[in-house]
Amino acid sequence: MNEIILAADLGGTNLRMAAITPSGEILHRVKVRTPSDDGRESILSTLSDGFKQLEQDLKQTGKVIAFGAAVPATIDASRGHILNSPNLPVLNNFNFAEYFSDLLKVPVLLENDANAAAIGENWKGATKGFQDSICVTLGTGVGGGLILGGRIHRGIDGTAGEVGHITVEPDGIPCGCGSQGCIEQYASARAISRFAHELMPRFPESVLHSDLDITPLDVYNAGVKRDALALEVFKLMGRYLGIALSGLINVLNPEAIVIGGGASAGWDLFIDSLRKEVDYRSFPEPAKRVKLLKSALGDDAGILGAAFLASKELVQPQIPIIQTTV
Amino acid sequence: MNEIILAADLGGTNLRMAAITPSGEILHRVKVRTPSDDGRESILSTLSDGFKQLEQDLKQTGKVIAFGAAVPATIDASRGHILNSPNLPVLNNFNFAEYFSDLLKVPVLLENDANAAAIGENWKGATKGFQDSICVTLGTGVGGGLILGGRIHRGIDGTAGEVGHITVEPDGIPCGCGSQGCIEQYASARAISRFAHELMPRFPESVLHSDLDITPLDVYNAGVKRDALALEVFKLMGRYLGIALSGLINVLNPEAIVIGGGASAGWDLFIDSLRKEVDYRSFPEPAKRVKLLKSALGDDAGILGAAFLASKELVQPQIPIIQTTV
Repeated sequence: MNEIILAADLGGTNLRMAAITPSGEILHRVKVRTPSDDGRESILSTLSDGFKQLEQDLKQTGKVIAFGAAVPATIDASRGHILNSPNLPVLNNFNFAEYFSDLLKVPVLLENDANAAAIGENWKGATKGFQDSICVTLGTGVGGGLILGGRIHRGIDGTAGEVGHITVEPDGIPCGCGSQGCIEQYASARAISRFAHELMPRFPESVLHSDLDITPLDVYNAGVKRDALALEVFKLMGRYLGIALSGLINVLNPEAIVIGGGASAGWDLFIDSLRKEVDYRSFPEPAKRVKLLKSALGDDAGILGAAFLASKELVQPQIPIIQTTV
Repeated sequence: MNEIILAADLGGTNLRMAAITPSGEILHRVKVRTPSDDGRESILSTLSDGFKQLEQDLKQTGKVIAFGAAVPATIDASRGHILNSPNLPVLNNFNFAEYFSDLLKVPVLLENDANAAAIGENWKGATKGFQDSICVTLGTGVGGGLILGGRIHRGIDGTAGEVGHITVEPDGIPCGCGSQGCIEQYASARAISRFAHELMPRFPESVLHSDLDITPLDVYNAGVKRDALALEVFKLMGRYLGIALSGLINVLNPEAIVIGGGASAGWDLFIDSLRKEVDYRSFPEPAKRVKLLKSALGDDAGILGAAFLASKELVQPQIPIIQTTV
């Protein structure tokens, strides 16, 4: 019987579950829509049903030894408690770890989703082997996780990593966080659509011109065809992302920044603008040092990070630990 | 015979030297103008002369066991080598530690000046007892040092901590670093003078109005007398500093930020505006957590930090080590 870690990445839109070996091999997956509108019980039973299916699939070959979960929330990591989840408010103030350890009879580890993605990329993905790296996820919002000295940096309250709420325009677009001009309003999927609408009057020839509702995918597809409006949108997005990341490069001098999330699909269309801005705004030495990398794991980063933590922190160091003493 | 650590803080303007006990008591001090225009030899002989004087003063009572130096430069800490010093370019590419260990026959430790100040404040000053803190120095420029998990965060090349070059206005004032809109251009001593000149047309009643050359001290003195122009200058400075620090608060979730340097003398005139901006732009939990503190050590932060490092890293842990395992 192989040892199996259950992992879940609970997004506002999709809920991903997987059975993963302690060495990081993904054996089985389940992906469903997150039943976010139907209350807490609905989310919990969807998770439970997924686990039952995974356990059933693996009955002959594996034994579940731990469960690691990534959630879009501020958490109390030591207690496995969800404090505040803006995108899944039905989970606010809920002891997730206690609930599932009672249900599954295995130890449960909870992590913030952006931190989990950073850990996943550092374990098996783009930042493997780096001690100091930053993971940025460009989705509906902009998230982030910091690996410093080979460890996730949680900060004193566990809220660290909120890269998305660095100000890039002091008097800019109002943000859901209550501030304004946050990078989330200039480099998220939503920002791509907004930029397209805003810039349209300057690009009457654009193929996007007649669309009332422009999705980020529309802009991307137009960009691939060298549509001038779409190219300008991604150039702006890269510029603003470069402004935010340059500050972090100057302050943290990291080895690498890995960029994931749905909107990172536009990589080829924004990376030149991003790199140019980083070189312009960062000190020469850290600018030269920092590798800007596209996510190697895509949607698997979160479940792999959660599985790594569950294996490392709950089960014992059966797998190599990232951390080294520096 | 007491054990004595020599410490130096080599600024662009002043050179401070001191004899310090391993427990952090400053026994003697020397302060002279930095002979920055007279070449490398002049700086080195000024340092040597200062040490001879300190050794002479302490001949009967103390034995020098180490030398710690803080320099305004990017350094290779492991080799004690100065890489690049924009304000004292005569010291570029110089092995400072080798030179002084040959001369003084004691181990020599070199640190960046802003990092040394952060360590000094964490040892004996405003951030004592905190594991995660940021030190910001508002002088001619804006410097910074990060203490994360009880240790100075140097980054992969030792260039970390450049808080002064976070962008706060994407299309803002050109900066000496080659970028533009850096916080250094909005919260340094130089920025105070520039803001006063810029805002003058709006404040014809200001006592500063007739001055051609307005020093930061002029603006401060006017502010203390409630001059509307001076108050507006410090309000703006606090706002921009709040924009830069909010990003770090969201990303790092520190326990405290300590603010020192000459321009921190204006504390009472900018702290309300800074705090307001932090509360507006940071997430509620880290905003509530972070203490904004005025430097407790003033000009002594750098020499105390250098002495701490020299004692800790060179001599052995005769004094408590800040770091704890987290």
